[in-house]
Amino acid sequence: MWTDRDRSRKNYEQDKEPALVVGFWNNGAISRSIARSVAARATGDQRYMLAARFWAPAAGFSRNPDLRALKSTTMVATATHQDSPLLFRQLFEKDSCTYTYLLADIGHPEKPAVLIDPVDKTVDRDVNLIKELGLKLKYAMNTHVHADHVTGTGLLKSKLPSAKSLISKASKAQADVFVEPGEKIHFGNLYLEVRPTPGHTQGCVTYVSGEGEGQPSPRMAFTGDALLVRGCGRTDFQGGNARELYKSVHSQILSLPKDTLLYPAHDYKGNTVTTVGEELLHNTRLTKDEEAFVKIMENLGLPYPKMIDVAVPANMVCGLQEANAATA
Amino acid sequence: MWTDRDRSRKNYEQDKEPALVVGFWNNGAISRSIARSVAARATGDQRYMLAARFWAPAAGFSRNPDLRALKSTTMVATATHQDSPLLFRQLFEKDSCTYTYLLADIGHPEKPAVLIDPVDKTVDRDVNLIKELGLKLKYAMNTHVHADHVTGTGLLKSKLPSAKSLISKASKAQADVFVEPGEKIHFGNLYLEVRPTPGHTQGCVTYVSGEGEGQPSPRMAFTGDALLVRGCGRTDFQGGNARELYKSVHSQILSLPKDTLLYPAHDYKGNTVTTVGEELLHNTRLTKDEEAFVKIMENLGLPYPKMIDVAVPANMVCGLQEANAATA
Repeated sequence: MWTDRDRSRKNYEQDKEPALVVGFWNNGAISRSIARSVAARATGDQRYMLAARFWAPAAGFSRNPDLRALKSTTMVATATHQDSPLLFRQLFEKDSCTYTYLLADIGHPEKPAVLIDPVDKTVDRDVNLIKELGLKLKYAMNTHVHADHVTGTGLLKSKLPSAKSLISKASKAQADVFVEPGEKIHFGNLYLEVRPTPGHTQGCVTYVSGEGEGQPSPRMAFTGDALLVRGCGRTDFQGGNARELYKSVHSQILSLPKDTLLYPAHDYKGNTVTTVGEELLHNTRLTKDEEAFVKIMENLGLPYPKMIDVAVPANMVCGLQEANAATA
Repeated sequence: MWTDRDRSRKNYEQDKEPALVVGFWNNGAISRSIARSVAARATGDQRYMLAARFWAPAAGFSRNPDLRALKSTTMVATATHQDSPLLFRQLFEKDSCTYTYLLADIGHPEKPAVLIDPVDKTVDRDVNLIKELGLKLKYAMNTHVHADHVTGTGLLKSKLPSAKSLISKASKAQADVFVEPGEKIHFGNLYLEVRPTPGHTQGCVTYVSGEGEGQPSPRMAFTGDALLVRGCGRTDFQGGNARELYKSVHSQILSLPKDTLLYPAHDYKGNTVTTVGEELLHNTRLTKDEEAFVKIMENLGLPYPKMIDVAVPANMVCGLQEANAATA
C-alpha cells in the first residue's frame, strides 16, 4: 500500500521531485477522494513534503476551488483499482458456471471484504485467497436464492467467524443480515447499494458499487441472474415473472451510466463482464419491447433445473451446512 | 466515447461549469497522457470551452510545469480503463480452461485490437464480440505453441481479414508476424512488450502492457503457461526446461512492479488474475529456491496431454484450419 510513500521519501532525500507528485500527474492515479481518504492516515513528513515541494511553487493553483480542496490532503497509496482503494476479484465455479466476486477496501486498516454469490464447492479456494490477501470477510452475501448451486455462505461462516451472511429481505431466506432496496452495505470506506431487481426470483437484488469520492469509477453492478451477458435469467419458477424482470432490469440496471460494468452471476460462454452501453445495444432479449420479451421468456422451453430440489431448500437457510445442522 | 463532450456542450450552453472539467477533478479520470492523445482529435468548440471556462480563471495554475503541459490539451472521453483508452476483456474456454484476452485502444479512431491466445472453439464468440464493440482486430497472437487446445488464429484470419497471426520467432511456428524479445507490438497508441519466458516450451513469451503515458496502470502481463496463479506450466515436453522456466519467470515476470496484474493462459480452479506481489509470497512452486523447484517439476508425474498430438501440429501452423488447407 505505501510504496509511493517510501519512494517519495527517497526522492525527497535526493532532492528530486517527490514521486507522490510525479505519480499523480503521470498516471492520473489520484483523485480528490483518495487523497482525502489517505490524508486521514498520512504521516507528518508526507504532509511536509507535499507542502514544501508541491504546493508552495503552485500557489496560484488554489484559485481553482477543486484544487484548493486538494491542499488539505496528501497523496495516494497503491491500489488495484486506479481511483479507489478497491481490490476486486472475479472467481469462477465451473460446474454451475457461477461467478463469485470478492471486493475489499485495502485502503482501510482492516481490509474489510465482501464475497458475492459464493459457491459451496469453491469455499476452500475463496477462504485461502481471503487469508493470503490479508482480508477480513465482513459479509458472505447472495444476490438471490439460487436454484443451480448451493451457496457457500454457511461454510464460509464456519471457516471465517468474522463473516455474516446477508441477503435481501424479499428473498425470505434465512441470514444474519437482511437488506432492503436503497440500503447501503458498507465495507471500510466503500459500499454497495441494494437495488431491487425481481423477476428471475421474487427477492433478486443487484448490488451496485458506490457513487462519489473513492468509490470505483466506472461503477460496477453485480446483477445476479437478473441480467446476464446478452441475456437474462429464466422467469419460470421461484416467483419468477417476465414482466417484472423486464421492468426491473430496465429501471434499476440499464438506467445506470453506459460505462457501468455489469458482472453477472453466471456465464455459459466464457464472457466475464459487459457494460450497460453494450447491453442496451446488443442484449438479445432485453432490447426487445416488453411484449416481445414476455413472448420470448414464455417460449424458452427450458428443462427443470437439475439442482433445484437440493439447492433451493439449502439456500433458503444460507447453505447446505446450516440446513444439515438445523435438522441434525 | 464522446458522451462527455456532449454533456459539456450542454452545460456550457446553460452557463455551468463544463462537465469535462468537473469530470476531471471529480473522478481523477484524466491524465496528461489521455488529455494529449484526445487533444489531437479535439474539435474547436472543445478547445474553446476549455480555454474560456477553465484555463482563464486558473491562470496561476501554469506555474506548475506539469500543469502547463495540460494547457495545450483538451479533455478526456469515456474509456473502460480509468487512466488509459484500453478496453479489456478476459474470456474463458471451458474444456481446456483457457483464457483469451481482448485488448483494444478505443481512443483511436480505428479501435485497433489484439486477441491473445484465442481458442478455435470460441472463435465465433470472439468474432461477434469484436464486431459488436466496433473493434478492428490487428493481431491474433499466441504466447506459445499450445499443447492442450487448438489456436483460433487461423479461423480468426478467415473471418476477420484485417487480422494477422503473430507469435514469437523462437516458437518456430508459422505466422504472419514474428516477434523477438524486447519488441513492441503496437495497436493504436497502446503497445505490448515482448518478454522471453521460455521453460514451459522453448518459444514461450510473456506480453506486458506498455509503460508511460496513456498505457494502463498498473501494468498487465499475459504470462501464457510460464506463470499460472500460484503455479506454473509443466516443463516436460516441447523443449521444456525447469531451470530455464525458473530463471525466466523470476527475471522477466516477477521482477515487474508488485502491483502488476498477471493474467495466465489457464486456470483450473476459477481464478482469473493475480499480481506479482501475490506470487512472490504465495506461489507454491516459484517461491522455492531453484533446486527445490527443479525437484518439484521433475516429480509431477503428469499424464501425457490428451490434446498434444492434435494441438501441437495444428498450432505450429497457427490453427487446424490452416493445417488442413496446407495438406488439402
